[in-house]
Order: sequence, then C-alpha cells, then structure tokens
Amino acid sequence: MINQKMYQLGASPSKIRDLFEYGNRRKAEIGADKVYDFSIGNPSVEPPVKVREVIEDLLANTNAVSLHGYTSAPGDPAVREAICNYVNRTHGTSLTKDNFYMTCGAAASLEISLRALCEEGDEFLTFAPFFPEYRVFAEAAGGSFDTVLCDPESFQPDIEDLRNKLSKNTKAIIVNSPNNPSGAVISEENVVKLCDVLREKSAEYGHPIILIADEPYRELVYDDVKVPFLMNYYNDTIVCYSYSKSLSLPGERIGYIAVSDKMTDSKDVFLAVCGAGRSLGYVCAPSLMQRVVAQCQGMTSDVSVYKENRDILANALREYGFTVVQPDGAFYLFVKAPEPDAEKFAEKAKEFELLLVPSDSFGVPGYVRISYCVSTEMIKNSLPAFEKLAESYGL
Amino acid sequence: MINQKMYQLGASPSKIRDLFEYGNRRKAEIGADKVYDFSIGNPSVEPPVKVREVIEDLLANTNAVSLHGYTSAPGDPAVREAICNYVNRTHGTSLTKDNFYMTCGAAASLEISLRALCEEGDEFLTFAPFFPEYRVFAEAAGGSFDTVLCDPESFQPDIEDLRNKLSKNTKAIIVNSPNNPSGAVISEENVVKLCDVLREKSAEYGHPIILIADEPYRELVYDDVKVPFLMNYYNDTIVCYSYSKSLSLPGERIGYIAVSDKMTDSKDVFLAVCGAGRSLGYVCAPSLMQRVVAQCQGMTSDVSVYKENRDILANALREYGFTVVQPDGAFYLFVKAPEPDAEKFAEKAKEFELLLVPSDSFGVPGYVRISYCVSTEMIKNSLPAFEKLAESYGL
Repeated sequence: MINQKMYQLGASPSKIRDLFEYGNRRKAEIGADKVYDFSIGNPSVEPPVKVREVIEDLLANTNAVSLHGYTSAPGDPAVREAICNYVNRTHGTSLTKDNFYMTCGAAASLEISLRALCEEGDEFLTFAPFFPEYRVFAEAAGGSFDTVLCDPESFQPDIEDLRNKLSKNTKAIIVNSPNNPSGAVISEENVVKLCDVLREKSAEYGHPIILIADEPYRELVYDDVKVPFLMNYYNDTIVCYSYSKSLSLPGERIGYIAVSDKMTDSKDVFLAVCGAGRSLGYVCAPSLMQRVVAQCQGMTSDVSVYKENRDILANALREYGFTVVQPDGAFYLFVKAPEPDAEKFAEKAKEFELLLVPSDSFGVPGYVRISYCVSTEMIKNSLPAFEKLAESYGL
Repeated sequence: MINQKMYQLGASPSKIRDLFEYGNRRKAEIGADKVYDFSIGNPSVEPPVKVREVIEDLLANTNAVSLHGYTSAPGDPAVREAICNYVNRTHGTSLTKDNFYMTCGAAASLEISLRALCEEGDEFLTFAPFFPEYRVFAEAAGGSFDTVLCDPESFQPDIEDLRNKLSKNTKAIIVNSPNNPSGAVISEENVVKLCDVLREKSAEYGHPIILIADEPYRELVYDDVKVPFLMNYYNDTIVCYSYSKSLSLPGERIGYIAVSDKMTDSKDVFLAVCGAGRSLGYVCAPSLMQRVVAQCQGMTSDVSVYKENRDILANALREYGFTVVQPDGAFYLFVKAPEPDAEKFAEKAKEFELLLVPSDSFGVPGYVRISYCVSTEMIKNSLPAFEKLAESYGL
C-alpha cells in the first residue's frame, strides 16, 4: 500500500539520529550533565543579535501581508540582489540575482540541484568521508552514487582516485569543504588539480562534469584558513549554500543555490532548478527568513567559541594518545579509533558516557566523528572520560 | 546535461503565474490602480495580530539556539501535541501527536504524501476543477493522474463518474473542499456517498483506496457552511493542511500532514511520510513558524473581508448577466464564460484590464477563476469594467 523505499527511509533513521535519541534516553536516566553527547551538528552558539533585531524591525515596519506573503518561486528579488551583491563583493564574481534561487536550506539546495541535473543512468560522486544523506539524495533523484578516496592522513582529495572514478556516466561531483565529518578544508593547490581533472575528463567525454559545491560550513574556519570559492576555479559549478551553521538557524531552513553565470547552458540549468523545486513541492523559501538573511550578509555566529572548543578537545585527545585529523573548519573532530572496528570503539566510549558517531556511515572505516558544537563547559567536563577511554585501550 | 522534465517545468510556469506576471508589467505601464488583477490566491487580509505577538514573545523569552534549532524531523513534539489537541477538540478525533508530521506548507504536504504512497503503476484521481499543480505533484511522485467530473451546476462531485473512474490502480483520490477554483464545499450527503463508493471499491479491489484531504481553505467558509472532517467519514484518510490561507502566512511555508490513526497500517504510512520528507530534502518545517502556529490554533485572519468581497462581486456579476457558481468557501469565484472558449473570454477581459484565469488548466473548459482575495476597494473599482465586459457580450 505504501512505497517501500520511502518506508525504509522513514523506518531506518540515520546512525547520527539513533545515537542522538540514545543520548536523550540516557540523559533522562542518569542526568543531562553526566552524558557527553557529541552526536549531532546542531550549532550551540547563538545567532548574531542582528537576526533578532532584523525580525523585530521587519515585524514593526513591513506590511504583514507582504512580509509573510508568497515571494516569487526563486525568492524575493531584493533578497537575491542583496545576496548576489555580497557574493560578488566577497569573491569577485559577476553574478546577477538571476543566478540565485532561494531554498529551504542545504538539504533542499542539494536535492533540487541533483533532480535538476539527473538523467537516466547518471552517477554522482563525492569524496569520502561524506555526509551520509548525500547517498539518500542522489538515489532519490534517480542517480547512482559512488565515492572517491581522500588521503588518509590529511583528508585532502585523492586526485588519482578521482581520475579513475570519473566516467562517461558521471553527471556531477559533490565537494564539501570545509568537510563534515573530517573538518578538512581542500587546499587551493588541490582545488586547482581537482578542477584540472574535471576539465580534462569533461573534454574526453564530451559533456561537462558539474561541480556541486556544498558549502554550509564556508564561514566556519579557523586560524586564517582560506576556503577557495570553487566557482572561480571551475565554470560548471553550482553552489549549494545554507545559513544553518553560519547564522545558527538550522531549524529555519534557509539557504540558496547559485548557478554560475559561466556554466554551460547556465540559464537552462537555472530553469531546471526552478522546475525541480516546483516538482518537489517547494513553493518558495520561508519569506520572513529570506528578508532576515538578506540583512545579515557577511555575519556569523561567534566562531571563536568553536575554535576554543576545537583547541581544548584536539589538544587533550592528542595528549591522551589519540590520533586526531587537524580540522581547519566546520565543527567536527575526526579521530582514529584505536581498534579497527569504529562501531566497537563507539560502543566502548558509551561506557564512559561519551557519544561519538562511528565513521562507517560516512563512507570510511576506523574513525569516529565528534561534534564539538556543544558548550565549552561540557567539553572540559568530558576530558576525564576521554582520558579513561584512552587508558582502557592502553594509549 | 539537465533533466528535461525539470527544465520544462521551470520553463513553463503555470498559467496563473503567467497572468500574474502580465499584470505586473501592465501595472507598470498604466498604473497599479488601473489594473484589476484577480489572478493569484495570495491572501489580502493581514494575519491575526497574535502572530506578531507570538513571534515577539518567542524572540524575547526563548533561547535563540533552541528557537531556531533543528526540531525532530516530524516537528517539535510540543507543537504537534498542541495541534493534535486542537484537532481532537474540534473534530472529536482521537489522534495523538504521532499522527502529525509538520511540513513546509500545502504543496510539501501533498508531494510528501503522494511519494510516501506511490508504487509502480499507481494512479491518483481528483475532482475537476482542481488546482493544476496536483498533476505536477502526482506525476513527479511517479504516478499517473486523472480527473473525475463534478456536477456542472453545483460543482458537487459526480459520484457515478467516481465509481467509473476508480480502478485497481487507483492509489488515492485528492479531495479539495472548499475547492480551488470553484469555491464549492462538498456537502455531508455527498461526502457520505463518496466514502461509501471508496469503501465499496476498496473491498472489490482488495486494497484500500486512500482519501487525501487537501484542506488549506477549511476555515474560509461563509454563512455557517459546515465542512465535514473527512477522517470522521473514512478511515483511510490523510489530511494535508496548510496555514497559508487561514493565517495569511503563504510565504512562511508551514502546514502539516495528519495520518488517521484508524488508517490501514497507519504507523507504516506515517513512517513512509517521514521517509518521503527525508528523500525530498525536507529536514524539518521552519522552527519559529512551528511554534507560532502552535499558539494560533483555531484563529483565522478576518474572514468577513472575504465574505464582503464575495457578496459584492457575486451579486454584481449576476446583475450584469454572468452565471456564477455559488462559492461557499475559499476566496475564488468561478464564472461561466459567455463564449465557449474561456481563453478567448479571458483575453477579452484583458481589454477591460480585468485579469481572470481561464479554467482550462483547472481541468474544465468554459469558466474563469476570479480570486477575490484582494482589497474590497479594488473590487468596487472593478465593477464598471465587469459591466462593460458583460455589455460587450450583449448580456
């Protein structure tokens, strides 16, 4: 009576969600302060004060019918203009508002882009480790899905493996930098190599291989690390953006798709994005939040809190003997499991009330992801537990 | 390089959108006050004051990280509880919060429900006239789509035609009462007959035929007309609801799906809804607006304005000689074109700066839809133009 694929997706929530729910049960049992829940990527730092100020100002000074009314399907023109101006100013692009389509957040940005592009037999690639919903989105769009290796030390893309995995069926590669779950930022040198291979293979196969830049963590970088703006390195680029992490608004579902003006058949791609949004039931992005983000361009929540968390946790874990991938961005620490089976390691960690996500569902074995978008206090309180966990492995 | 179906959907916006864009161009040419734009169903009455009060209160008194944070995928439990309690109180149902899944508005509610249900070879039915996006949504979900007749005078469902159109491939019928575009409300007598036929045919085919009640206009009814709550007449019912029209929040994209607790395999259907939402990229419904609607249960914008508009317009049009379907709800007037081709009639109306949507894309020929969710002043100002239009047809 129902679609079995949809039932399976509903009945088997992600591993991350599973652990998060376990955490809630465990907190009820032994007290919230005794469980160190590092499972979920929910920003812990408040949105900029400006967010609230803009909402209050809009409520006071805008006609309510217009403020809460339908916008055009790609978004309010003034909003798209404001975002476009900011992107052009920041990245030196020459986009117009008609390259921008406002969305209900990153997941919507991705799924709309994949459906706009996907034809019979298409394959989508991404570098592993990757956010597990990529597979769900690619398969729901009707494509197949495969992964490309990263260097196991630096988690920079393995360009040779990319060359091997690209085929005439490759429609697009999703690039997520800063990366969830590794925190790695792809260096400019590697961006150039990656784009060179895409150009080479596009020419070989006679059709463009599209680069989908999934960038919700763009602004969450530390120590002056630079995130190359991929549109400036490769013409056939679609940027999927979300304000969930940068402005700490994940529940509000607001982001955008930017289709490069230099892309092959750029206007047709944009129309296919509009069509995909329509067919998925996205009428427009939430109207109040469209206006809010337009006025908060270039702002972020206080990133210094995440940096402090990262430094405390990464330094302590290294001191206890763990191998930690250096995270330049996002708010995740990727830590090597001291036994081959990361699931077993995560189970062991639970004995110390540490909730860590095993890396298997991210497409690589042998690691755990630690979301450090939590209170600094919790991080400090959790350190003795991490120390005992290390000791239990004789580190 | 792109998906051609998506491109076509993006490149061919609906007739309604087309006319709306024409209206904007025409207003720029001759002045906004000289164009009588009845094209689009955008509520013209402000949201209840309570909407603004609740937003201000939430901003002042709720932790911002939690207010704007991810909710669980089906929605915040307290929000679902509040809505569930209101529905149970109002309609005498015994639902729990776990029958409710919060969505990004009516289009999302529908598309998620159709994808949750659709299996290979399935057909979806609706009564004509119907909201044209139904076809887009049904086909995007992978189903075929067909229509059932209504009585051409009352626009009540033709139960015999329903009996003929139902087949072993029918997965569900979408019922939209109050109806866009006719304004008709299905009488209780006809609801009973309709449900009897669905039960009879479900038994004959050995699987439930599902009733999808698309109810964004539930509260917009006039003169004490009652809208039967379909779940109380038929067990295999899914309600798709949106606050767009009742609270005048169409841009905010907030609504819900309610899966009847009495439905066959109710819990599995609910999980399939969760899975479909996930696969379409809906992570959760906008979090601030979830909390807003939870506190505005049972409220509506000032419906008396729409009633006044309806009465002025329907009475005048009848006086001028037009045949008008009596609208008991929603904010649309369905008017018989005085020539067989409604598109030609709509073109003629443009000469008098009247923007009316021909009925062909609603699945019936020979009518125009007039959206009277506009200012009462505009309606009064438009009457001489309607009178001249009537005269041009010798009415």
